Amino acid sequence: MKLPDDRFLSPDPSQKKIALDIIESSRGYPIISPHGHVDPALFVDSEAVFGTPSQVLIIPDHYVYRMLYSQGIPLEDVGIPRVDGGHSDSNQRRIWQVFAENFHLFRGTPTGIWLKYELSEIFGVDDKLNAQNAQLIYDQIEAKLTMPEFKPRALFQRFGIQVLCTTDHAYDRLDHHRLIRKSGWNAEIRPTFRPDSVVNLDTPEWRENILRLSETSEIDITSYGAFVSALEKQRELFKEFGSVATDHAAPTAYTTTLTKREASTIFHHALKGHIRPDETKQFTGHMLVEMARMSSEDGLVMQFHPGSFRDYNSEIYRKFGSNTGADIPVLSEYASNLHPLLEAFGNDTRFSLILFTLDESTYARELAPLAGHYPAVKLGPPWWFFDSLNGIRRYFDLVMETAGIYNTVGFNDDTRAFLSIPARHDLWRRASADWLAGLTIRHVIDMEEALDMMAEISYRLARRAYKLDQSINIEQAQGVTNGLTDL
Amino acid sequence: MKLPDDRFLSPDPSQKKIALDIIESSRGYPIISPHGHVDPALFVDSEAVFGTPSQVLIIPDHYVYRMLYSQGIPLEDVGIPRVDGGHSDSNQRRIWQVFAENFHLFRGTPTGIWLKYELSEIFGVDDKLNAQNAQLIYDQIEAKLTMPEFKPRALFQRFGIQVLCTTDHAYDRLDHHRLIRKSGWNAEIRPTFRPDSVVNLDTPEWRENILRLSETSEIDITSYGAFVSALEKQRELFKEFGSVATDHAAPTAYTTTLTKREASTIFHHALKGHIRPDETKQFTGHMLVEMARMSSEDGLVMQFHPGSFRDYNSEIYRKFGSNTGADIPVLSEYASNLHPLLEAFGNDTRFSLILFTLDESTYARELAPLAGHYPAVKLGPPWWFFDSLNGIRRYFDLVMETAGIYNTVGFNDDTRAFLSIPARHDLWRRASADWLAGLTIRHVIDMEEALDMMAEISYRLARRAYKLDQSINIEQAQGVTNGLTDL
Amino acid sequence: MKLPDDRFLSPDPSQKKIALDIIESSRGYPIISPHGHVDPALFVDSEAVFGTPSQVLIIPDHYVYRMLYSQGIPLEDVGIPRVDGGHSDSNQRRIWQVFAENFHLFRGTPTGIWLKYELSEIFGVDDKLNAQNAQLIYDQIEAKLTMPEFKPRALFQRFGIQVLCTTDHAYDRLDHHRLIRKSGWNAEIRPTFRPDSVVNLDTPEWRENILRLSETSEIDITSYGAFVSALEKQRELFKEFGSVATDHAAPTAYTTTLTKREASTIFHHALKGHIRPDETKQFTGHMLVEMARMSSEDGLVMQFHPGSFRDYNSEIYRKFGSNTGADIPVLSEYASNLHPLLEAFGNDTRFSLILFTLDESTYARELAPLAGHYPAVKLGPPWWFFDSLNGIRRYFDLVMETAGIYNTVGFNDDTRAFLSIPARHDLWRRASADWLAGLTIRHVIDMEEALDMMAEISYRLARRAYKLDQSINIEQAQGVTNGLTDL
Repeated sequence: MKLPDDRFLSPDPSQKKIALDIIESSRGYPIISPHGHVDPALFVDSEAVFGTPSQVLIIPDHYVYRMLYSQGIPLEDVGIPRVDGGHSDSNQRRIWQVFAENFHLFRGTPTGIWLKYELSEIFGVDDKLNAQNAQLIYDQIEAKLTMPEFKPRALFQRFGIQVLCTTDHAYDRLDHHRLIRKSGWNAEIRPTFRPDSVVNLDTPEWRENILRLSETSEIDITSYGAFVSALEKQRELFKEFGSVATDHAAPTAYTTTLTKREASTIFHHALKGHIRPDETKQFTGHMLVEMARMSSEDGLVMQFHPGSFRDYNSEIYRKFGSNTGADIPVLSEYASNLHPLLEAFGNDTRFSLILFTLDESTYARELAPLAGHYPAVKLGPPWWFFDSLNGIRRYFDLVMETAGIYNTVGFNDDTRAFLSIPARHDLWRRASADWLAGLTIRHVIDMEEALDMMAEISYRLARRAYKLDQSINIEQAQGVTNGLTDL
Repeated sequence: MKLPDDRFLSPDPSQKKIALDIIESSRGYPIISPHGHVDPALFVDSEAVFGTPSQVLIIPDHYVYRMLYSQGIPLEDVGIPRVDGGHSDSNQRRIWQVFAENFHLFRGTPTGIWLKYELSEIFGVDDKLNAQNAQLIYDQIEAKLTMPEFKPRALFQRFGIQVLCTTDHAYDRLDHHRLIRKSGWNAEIRPTFRPDSVVNLDTPEWRENILRLSETSEIDITSYGAFVSALEKQRELFKEFGSVATDHAAPTAYTTTLTKREASTIFHHALKGHIRPDETKQFTGHMLVEMARMSSEDGLVMQFHPGSFRDYNSEIYRKFGSNTGADIPVLSEYASNLHPLLEAFGNDTRFSLILFTLDESTYARELAPLAGHYPAVKLGPPWWFFDSLNGIRRYFDLVMETAGIYNTVGFNDDTRAFLSIPARHDLWRRASADWLAGLTIRHVIDMEEALDMMAEISYRLARRAYKLDQSINIEQAQGVTNGLTDL
Repeated sequence: MKLPDDRFLSPDPSQKKIALDIIESSRGYPIISPHGHVDPALFVDSEAVFGTPSQVLIIPDHYVYRMLYSQGIPLEDVGIPRVDGGHSDSNQRRIWQVFAENFHLFRGTPTGIWLKYELSEIFGVDDKLNAQNAQLIYDQIEAKLTMPEFKPRALFQRFGIQVLCTTDHAYDRLDHHRLIRKSGWNAEIRPTFRPDSVVNLDTPEWRENILRLSETSEIDITSYGAFVSALEKQRELFKEFGSVATDHAAPTAYTTTLTKREASTIFHHALKGHIRPDETKQFTGHMLVEMARMSSEDGLVMQFHPGSFRDYNSEIYRKFGSNTGADIPVLSEYASNLHPLLEAFGNDTRFSLILFTLDESTYARELAPLAGHYPAVKLGPPWWFFDSLNGIRRYFDLVMETAGIYNTVGFNDDTRAFLSIPARHDLWRRASADWLAGLTIRHVIDMEEALDMMAEISYRLARRAYKLDQSINIEQAQGVTNGLTDL
């Protein structure tokens, strides 16, 4: 099943012709991946190889195995490691067989679209995966994965990735990033500063994380003031390694401004291990405003994506840990919740806040009106469950009339599965072209505008929103890291 | 106006051709109606006949008369019976005339689509109903209704209904179901266990209902323990008559786990007639978890559809009672509300919970992610206001990418109007074919997959989700009921 | 760029042909504009002229300048007047240049669609505005604006406006309306009674507004009873000048029924300047029910549009005042909030309540079911951010199946920018025709029905919903006003 040229496009022949011309115009643009969860360790060693087909396509992709689990297939049967020491199948071919037998579950889903792309475009597998041909296809992929052109660095080049941002704990020493630089490989792989695990006081390992932050920052965090200083220092470290952004999650979009004394009091309660009810929420809300302040000063773009009930299924969490497909979106509210933060920094043109949502009812109601008014606010692309064919269509439909494309930031693939990156950008670009062709054939825009907007949506918006042109370049960063001797 | 073959399909000729092929492939599938409100009394007597055209098409269909009422036409004028003893018109031809004069109100509505189908396909009326031809068409339908092939049992066969599930009070003796069995007619008409009127403590006739439950179950309900036992015993009775499912409504999706002592205390307050504020909500939430426990043990599929403000218009309720088109949907939340229930039984593969909603913003936000993770959770079809052409399209759009079709359950017609059953399934299948054709022409799936998915959506998903293959078959049930002598 | 005949229509050729026929059928209908914010002062003097191109197209249109502001352009740079005495650019050509250089921001937005229409259809500008041709186009428009056929009254005729309703404070003396009548010009320009600034007790100038109301009504408002009497008297004045409706905003849809004593107490607190927490909400909720009572007696149609967080950005509010594009929609709830009002007047056929929303998730969930049941409830058209190509499509999609078109009220342009009126009605009619063509080609309706529905949607629904046929006509009103000598 070679992928058809007109995949994902609306069927009207006139509109499709326009869409194909628009897609053609965007072929030259490299991939900008400014937000994702690929492990930088993959790229440290130029000779590194991927594992088995199951280790590449199934085990790191919770989109895949949550669907199998929803049909009653134990996660142990597809090799998801137990964090509680329980047994999980390690027979890679048996795991693959389970996946193949249930491949029909992905019909009509974005995961199905990405998997088809990966099988066909990356591995040259043109047969539809099923129970019968499962082992044969396993053989094909396994053989490919041993070839030099299937090493992580080779695929990075083949995929045409210009920038790849990872997501890193605030206390991270950025060792993998150091080693990549040290290796002399000049790919633009940039860290992103994610402070949730030290800011959200109910994080299970919060105290250990504070110790880690103390150690990395070389600031002894015994007070709220020291905590803020340590964060600021680490942000500087991240910037030295090319970081352009921070990344924040929270159960809700609640923000608030505490006095320094109030913040100190809560922080001390946390250090002593007895937080009072509501203090976690207050502190998270306060730190979001504080991070906005830091961003307005150091220029790191602030990304914020509230609205997920994390680790919803506690049995799965106990057995398999976090990020296993058991996070459930919740009803979200931005207007009232973000008001304190925006009152403080919304009109500050040095500050840039990119908002994401898992509640699509907020697109047209709150997010597009906020992005369409505040200089500091931009809208992130459809996220998580929604970077799908319909999800992208709904996003364009609900957001663009009020916000305009120039208050959006292009695409983020946000993936843990490195091989799915080109598949996701392919879907984004095709869905974008389809949308633009729909506007063109309705004479809302003309073809010249459509082509220019396609360049924005595919490439320029992301570079601009994440300040990739202004940020420290990789050569400079290498100068910094080559001088480091602690690795 | 003979119904056109390509009704409800998207206009692009290539896509339409695919859709027509998909529809053709599904013609052989009988109707599975696993959830509805048809009165089983209709089928007790093989010689029963329907009433007048007005009694068949208007008076039992609150979708029809709520629209007339919204335009200022008193419900008395269309013969809706007053429960308060007030006068209502009984002139069947006058009622019909009012309906015909206002037939334009149904333009573009699902009710309009169903009515056209019923008039054309069932009664062979090809003229558009209006004020002028109203009495002539009344004559035509009236004549048909006296013919043998228009008796309820004959239409049941003609409609190709394989399974029809009714909805029955938890305290029901299932007399109509007994009589149907006793009559030797082997249609699969199955009861559904609906305990709302004994579980929701603010039901107006709650104490009478408890007495009824005591009587039917032959368990004297003087305690919470006896209440639970009576429910369990009645569930067994329902299963003997072929029941495969339970059905639950509540104002919200709130669930909670009370201790036995807490539940007992509230139940005693209810028996004594002085419930404290919030106890109703607590008890309903607790009983939902308790019913999930029972389902995990006895295998009855649990259906849950919260989110309606019932009997919203108290003047209408006083005059005409419940289910008159005056129930208004409310903002709904599932993730937090269902958490206690899912923590207890979500991973239990013996348990099956089918969720419905009247708040479409929950489809993509909460329901599809829950169904796409939990083995126990499935998503019901678009419900009530939403089993319409656009409602079905939105459902596919918002649900399927995250949940996949295999975590959904096919269609429910959910109707009180027996004659609308084939019209509703026709619309569902055509809208499904249109969706599948859209995916096919966009190369998201291929034709082989589309045809297989159509078989699932039209037939197999419903049989599987409602365990119709495993459940006690009608012949067995007849063995049971033939031995009963209390009728 | 002459506007193409098939603009905004779906591309399928068969559907497009139907849509074009439907549009053709509606050409003869004049514009009914029953809700908007055009200043009646424009029409007082038959010789009045508009100002500069910037004063006509940019400065009065917060849709335009909020988008510029969102990209970091100070509002001072586009001539928005400071209310705090700060400096704002008054160089009309420089303002125009900024606008032209950023014209790409409006690609794909309704503002872009309206501006293109205004430039092309009204001013005959066929080139796309950009930085290079900005001053040339300024010249063209400036020249046009001095011509007699570009005077406000001439454009009113040229636009084919049959009825234009303005929005006027409850305490307004309607001087401009008097002067228009006195001038002998018989255009149907009608005031609308908007009492928010005296009803919402937290309005900044509330006490001054009460004094104004006292003065205009000649009732000394020292008590709640006097307040109600003054409102009733002013409503009569508005009716004398042809008013057919009232207009109400509130942060939420909350309604409640206070006793006269409770209402009096709150009103006295307000007069004394010390309102207790929650009293503002209670009083607003109570007055909404009280206004429904008045409407049921005097026949003024009640319009209600809750759900905007007004003046969200306090820095912008301090500098530029209200209505600057900094109002942000919030999550809305109607079912529970409106219950007290509908329990009191929902079944009253003398009463008519038109509901609007900024939260589209309420369309299908609450608003369409309410309009599809209550005789008194109608649904207003898509409002504010949503009278756009996609917004209108979503409205038809989400509302019409449940409410039917006959429980809706046609279109409102709701604009402050007089020149955008024909552009907005053009978009509405084309989007309506596209929707009807989609229903027709799917055989949900036939062509005869489509044409009749188009007449309703373009013209008749608005006339009927706003009781324009029954209301006092302009000639009568002139009789009244000609006798007035206090101007």
